[in-house]
Amino acid sequence: MSSRFSLVFTLLFATSLAYAQPISPRLEQRAAALAGKAGEDNLGYALVESLTTEVGPRLAGTEAEARAREWAVDRLRSLGFSHVRVEPFELPVWERGVEWAQITDPYPQPLVITALGGSTPTGPDGVEAEVTAVASLEQLSAAPPENMKGKIVFVDEVMTRTQDGSGYGVAAGKRRAAAYIAEEKGAVAVLIRSVGTSQHRFAHTGQMRRLTEDGAVRGVPAAALSAPDADQLQRILASRGSVTLRMVLTPQQRPAGMSGNVIAEIPGTEAADEIVLVGAHLDSWDLGTGAVDDGAGVGIVVAAAKQVMDAMPEGPRRTVRIVLFGAEEVGLVGAQAYAQAHADELEKHIVASESDFGAGRIWRFETNVAEDKIDAAQALGSVVRSLGAARGGNNASGGPDMKYIREAGVPVVGLKQNGWDYFDLHHTPNDTLDKIDPADIAHNVAAWSSFIFLAANADGYYR
Amino acid sequence: MSSRFSLVFTLLFATSLAYAQPISPRLEQRAAALAGKAGEDNLGYALVESLTTEVGPRLAGTEAEARAREWAVDRLRSLGFSHVRVEPFELPVWERGVEWAQITDPYPQPLVITALGGSTPTGPDGVEAEVTAVASLEQLSAAPPENMKGKIVFVDEVMTRTQDGSGYGVAAGKRRAAAYIAEEKGAVAVLIRSVGTSQHRFAHTGQMRRLTEDGAVRGVPAAALSAPDADQLQRILASRGSVTLRMVLTPQQRPAGMSGNVIAEIPGTEAADEIVLVGAHLDSWDLGTGAVDDGAGVGIVVAAAKQVMDAMPEGPRRTVRIVLFGAEEVGLVGAQAYAQAHADELEKHIVASESDFGAGRIWRFETNVAEDKIDAAQALGSVVRSLGAARGGNNASGGPDMKYIREAGVPVVGLKQNGWDYFDLHHTPNDTLDKIDPADIAHNVAAWSSFIFLAANADGYYR
Ligand SMILES: [Zn+2]
Ligand SMILES: [Zn+2]
Ligand SMILES: [Zn+2]
Ligand SMILES: [Zn+2]
Repeated sequence: MSSRFSLVFTLLFATSLAYAQPISPRLEQRAAALAGKAGEDNLGYALVESLTTEVGPRLAGTEAEARAREWAVDRLRSLGFSHVRVEPFELPVWERGVEWAQITDPYPQPLVITALGGSTPTGPDGVEAEVTAVASLEQLSAAPPENMKGKIVFVDEVMTRTQDGSGYGVAAGKRRAAAYIAEEKGAVAVLIRSVGTSQHRFAHTGQMRRLTEDGAVRGVPAAALSAPDADQLQRILASRGSVTLRMVLTPQQRPAGMSGNVIAEIPGTEAADEIVLVGAHLDSWDLGTGAVDDGAGVGIVVAAAKQVMDAMPEGPRRTVRIVLFGAEEVGLVGAQAYAQAHADELEKHIVASESDFGAGRIWRFETNVAEDKIDAAQALGSVVRSLGAARGGNNASGGPDMKYIREAGVPVVGLKQNGWDYFDLHHTPNDTLDKIDPADIAHNVAAWSSFIFLAANADGYYR
Repeated sequence: MSSRFSLVFTLLFATSLAYAQPISPRLEQRAAALAGKAGEDNLGYALVESLTTEVGPRLAGTEAEARAREWAVDRLRSLGFSHVRVEPFELPVWERGVEWAQITDPYPQPLVITALGGSTPTGPDGVEAEVTAVASLEQLSAAPPENMKGKIVFVDEVMTRTQDGSGYGVAAGKRRAAAYIAEEKGAVAVLIRSVGTSQHRFAHTGQMRRLTEDGAVRGVPAAALSAPDADQLQRILASRGSVTLRMVLTPQQRPAGMSGNVIAEIPGTEAADEIVLVGAHLDSWDLGTGAVDDGAGVGIVVAAAKQVMDAMPEGPRRTVRIVLFGAEEVGLVGAQAYAQAHADELEKHIVASESDFGAGRIWRFETNVAEDKIDAAQALGSVVRSLGAARGGNNASGGPDMKYIREAGVPVVGLKQNGWDYFDLHHTPNDTLDKIDPADIAHNVAAWSSFIFLAANADGYYR
């Protein structure tokens, strides 16, 4: 890989100079060289391997997530980062129990389901009822309650496969809201076609409405069907008109458990009070080992920051802060805790970004900054673009855990990964290490190291 | 598809004449025309859809397998076949219970496993023991008992992906024997890397030593790990040397239940006592809906025989007998029952074959006949070859359920399907209808209809 990377970087440096405006050619040259070196390193993949093997699944608020924090603290310290610490917070804890469904009439047979995060239980005997299908959340909302009363509602909305993940928002909408709307209509339970893009027989879990938004809402018991099972149910409904189904879900909810954000820094020098925040989330769903979601992000941002630290023994101008968020999956609880705990400091957050979209290669560098700072912020992505990313728009989310600090005014950028296959694995038992190509992680580490280096050493502001 | 098929058949008829020796050009021309017509029909796929939807999983000896027989009798009668009947037989019935495994030390986490068919139970509390890994069944056989005593043995043998399925025999060997060898060595349980070729997180079930071979053997509790979980276990063993694991399996075995073979015929005319047997198996494993194994085979042979029946209202020379075997998966129990029940008639079985290798296209036509009848038997595959199959050797198995009648001297042929992807799905929950391309089923129906037509109307013998 070495010689190829060197050649690429020699070439791209020449072309990328044309874009560099608020950043000196010398800084950009160093960023390109750093990316070239980072692309040859395997620390990013090694970290994903270590996290997914030595901790495995790490559901928010559980003992497994606590072990993930210990793992992170230990790794960040031994890699040489400063101010490694946990910022703990409390949250309600939901844990999966039995999950089981069966068509009882006609054509008795089991179906593959998984409870949605936050689902209420059916009780150990489950519920048995006739199924009524709706094609979308809108159709559910519009349905007369008399058609839903006493029924198991099946929301059969298909998610669109896209590179940018734009199919997710619509599909996740049904996951978030179906149980509550079904409850209002008098239904006894709800099944959704999994929010996902694969035909493999995995049901995709995921949180219902955010804990941080709705402390009190309950909803009917809610589960996702795998795609083949949704097809099967639809086929039987189409040919026979009526299906009776029994489902059992026994999740438990505890009022409070502990989670926390793990934080580490490369202390800045001339502008040590200015912060470049790079994040990923440490928690995962319980079904897989959280490799693409979000072990990959953890490996990428930590390995990229390590490259920057090693390249600058004198320290960067600004402080680089790594935040490995806890409890992302259950409703951005760590993100909210961070924004609250650091409210006074947010004006000193110069730019922030999170890696949380799998292990695909970066194809777009996008911003969410003041209109007159777009070019300056895009300059932070000059090497990223040279690695193959297009220039994106100025509506970046920056990643899910950037929500609250972005809303508080922190400029964010997005190193947008190719998510074409991401939702094949997302929130399923199949999210395991073997699905990741180490070369893709190295590409991401190269891109992120250049971005971190430039953001931490530039003197621009993006508000 | 129509015009493409017509063109292909016009062309291939010209070339295939050169091979035709014991079969008249006129017969072969009709077979080619029949295949062309069959390739445009969707009955084969419709039957797979119906069986996998309306019955779903159909484990040998269960009520679900009984419903599959009802389904088959009903369909075969309404399609117009004659002498539709069930030939029942008894067998011990094994049913899956809870299956669950967890690494307890180091790195506690769940693993995806599935019990092997015929496994003994661990009891509801399971077994917890240190894991000892062996690379192969040979290594297990050679291991000193003191290294295995009290341990959970992990047999980490990788199956080779091949077109012809030749990787299966070796890999299935460990599935069949590991529990018994481990028991001899004093182990408490055995885990095998799944016999399969996919990295998706499904464990592949399958029968241990055949019921028909070993009534009395017991063995230690035995399960298969999914490939990602086998990787995970191997990784931890490699880095930490020692792993403790808990596993729970609660299958139950009943001494006797009912199964049966479903039989239907197209009565012959001049040579009505001569039988051309075409088969598939009706039972499936309980995890998936048995689409590629062996719903596909059921759809293919029934649809192909239907084509022959419709093309010859006067009836073929010989009797065509469809046999949908019961209890194949648990040890060819239906195959043995058929061979016993029809022992007197086997000398009148002119040629036989089974479709039981998924829904892939046919790439080879092979025989297992008297040395001096190879060309005559290959002539039965002239149209099959024209559809893209190569001429194979003379060591065909003819399909698993052909074992006992082949051993009793019945000539068999193999319409060998491309099995490159078959073991990705085989014996997993992921064996569902959506994995089948209807055009591939149509190709198989075309090939089989030509073979059946030629075998039923030729006057050759192959012993
Ligand atoms: Zn995520
Ligand atoms: Zn997620
Ligand atoms: Zn089979
Ligand atoms: Zn099978």
